[in-house]
Amino acid sequence: MAEVHANRRDRLRERCAAMGGAAALVSRPSNVRYLSGAAPAGAVVLVLGASGGSGGSSGEDLLLCPAPLSGRPDEGQPDDALRTRVLPPGSADPAVAAAEHMAAVGGADSLAVEEHDLTVARHRALGAAAPGLRLADLGGAVEQLRYVKDEEEISCLRIAAEIADHALGELLESILVGRTERHLALELERRLVDHGADGRAFPTSVATGPDAGRPGHRPTDRRVEEGDFLSVCLGAVYRGYRCEIGRTFVIGTSPAAWQIELYDLVFAAQRAGREALVPGVLCGEVDRVARQVLGAAGFTEGQPTLTGHGVGLEIDEDPKLAPSAMGKLDACVPVTVEPGVHLPGRGGVRIDDTLVVRPEADGGPELLTITTKELLAL
Amino acid sequence: MAEVHANRRDRLRERCAAMGGAAALVSRPSNVRYLSGAAPAGAVVLVLGASGGSGGSSGEDLLLCPAPLSGRPDEGQPDDALRTRVLPPGSADPAVAAAEHMAAVGGADSLAVEEHDLTVARHRALGAAAPGLRLADLGGAVEQLRYVKDEEEISCLRIAAEIADHALGELLESILVGRTERHLALELERRLVDHGADGRAFPTSVATGPDAGRPGHRPTDRRVEEGDFLSVCLGAVYRGYRCEIGRTFVIGTSPAAWQIELYDLVFAAQRAGREALVPGVLCGEVDRVARQVLGAAGFTEGQPTLTGHGVGLEIDEDPKLAPSAMGKLDACVPVTVEPGVHLPGRGGVRIDDTLVVRPEADGGPELLTITTKELLAL
Repeated sequence: MAEVHANRRDRLRERCAAMGGAAALVSRPSNVRYLSGAAPAGAVVLVLGASGGSGGSSGEDLLLCPAPLSGRPDEGQPDDALRTRVLPPGSADPAVAAAEHMAAVGGADSLAVEEHDLTVARHRALGAAAPGLRLADLGGAVEQLRYVKDEEEISCLRIAAEIADHALGELLESILVGRTERHLALELERRLVDHGADGRAFPTSVATGPDAGRPGHRPTDRRVEEGDFLSVCLGAVYRGYRCEIGRTFVIGTSPAAWQIELYDLVFAAQRAGREALVPGVLCGEVDRVARQVLGAAGFTEGQPTLTGHGVGLEIDEDPKLAPSAMGKLDACVPVTVEPGVHLPGRGGVRIDDTLVVRPEADGGPELLTITTKELLAL
Repeated sequence: MAEVHANRRDRLRERCAAMGGAAALVSRPSNVRYLSGAAPAGAVVLVLGASGGSGGSSGEDLLLCPAPLSGRPDEGQPDDALRTRVLPPGSADPAVAAAEHMAAVGGADSLAVEEHDLTVARHRALGAAAPGLRLADLGGAVEQLRYVKDEEEISCLRIAAEIADHALGELLESILVGRTERHLALELERRLVDHGADGRAFPTSVATGPDAGRPGHRPTDRRVEEGDFLSVCLGAVYRGYRCEIGRTFVIGTSPAAWQIELYDLVFAAQRAGREALVPGVLCGEVDRVARQVLGAAGFTEGQPTLTGHGVGLEIDEDPKLAPSAMGKLDACVPVTVEPGVHLPGRGGVRIDDTLVVRPEADGGPELLTITTKELLAL
């Protein structure tokens, strides 16, 4: 694994050199983890430049961690090949320590920082600690590296999806009527960890009856009743990688006609979105084809901003599948496709998969979350 | 509850007026929740100034929320009396929308922002959106308001602590030998929610044998064995408020002599810290008295930075109980006291309580986490 992280730092080093910068300071936690394998709270990675006197090989890069504050755990294991320096108790922000290190080592006159992550106050402290260093903006350079996943990352996502499928599958075998949304959500989260997840990828949503399919619903003490729609959205974290699955079920022996109709509509929209996932497609186009199916049935108002989004070390990554999204999808980009419709007072349907974009020659989009999308009556 | 939030915004308004600022933009999530009762992801609170043409009563304040991105839940319920504006899909950062609102309403020429929360990139976007508005620094003004808790906040912390005590107490009644750290941690987290917590306050730590008492230990698949030290650190969230409790136990019928000795030492250090919690004491002094007990027994190296810290809407708040901490404790400030010793390869002890500083006339420090601190052999 150490080689993976060193290669990623080398790719960032090349980008920095192309941008004319000598070194980069990475502070966004998911980016720190991507480049180092670990994300101790508050840690930063210093990637030294390809040119200049201060180094330029991955052996010179540095993971700077704050002194452990108290007894709470960190995430991941740092890359063995990356020099790690844990700052002594009471010392400054690791980002400031990195700037001081740069100034002390010499040879570089500029440092690219993540202006979308560093606060104004930290940025000012950096500048004050190393007044001779010009602070530039690294922008989303690391996020761009993270956009297309390697097979190791995809295999972590695949395992995360398997875990979520297992947890959901087991829940479906149990008695649901009479149990509360909160208990079902907890039960799912316990099963995620039982099956090997590091934890949940985001707070599990379980929504019943009139709240089913409602975006942003938090589990309540409402109990599952006969005739309800039941919608569930959950995800596992495995080695830092996060997946997402959402399904909607009907409780009881026979769904009502309106339930079948609504389900079929959302299913068609979700399928249209999934089938649009080919390398080179515009993100806005995937959103459009899914939204169009719902729109043709009159559901245009009150729709969420996104039809889907990238997943990886964060649960909401680029790309965004939204009307105004400009980028294109590439092979090996994992995304969710998750349209839904909610009828106020009645309930609704949401169907959500995590897939990896693959060329048609490789069989087209790879579905990671394989739980059935038939309308199950439970 | 609405009145509570309006009063808090009024107190902030007074501070802003004293600082010469007309309005404040609050973006740090825990601060947004403190002032509004809710913390939708990415939301900001705009508190208008006491002087100037643009308002100045809590009825004019504004909670600006981004359009819901997808189906994941938010935390808390917004204050009914606070005007809430959910931005349309695809629109800008709510902080930028707040600056535009200020510019459109007119009458104010400066806006104080949280430079310790806003990123450099967001700050720049704010400035560009409202070029006529001078951006000042609000600093930690809201954190300062949050430092001393009102009785409603303390009662949430008290309930959070009761929940954690219950969860821990039930675990102690079960068979522990042979179970893994991960399972015990999960079991505790499930019980937290069963007893009414919104969730865990931080990832639960369970450490056995050589890892017991080790700061930052993440639960592994190691099983509890006879003769082990077992240390546990957990906390519940109740209505957004977070507490913390840590205990160490011995597994088996009779602790070894070294275990009793080490336990008594950490207990004495923790008691010294607890007893030092009087209104007006220096934070560094509380740390010193606890550290001194450990130091007298030769444990000076490798100690964590903090002996304790404030708790509230975040699990790590001010004050910090650390050697260099300058501030003083006040009545109604809740803090943890959590010294420990870890002997590499052998294990260790950590004892952690959440208490509220109270004057001696009121009975001295109020212990929220009441699980016994006798050395239990389980």
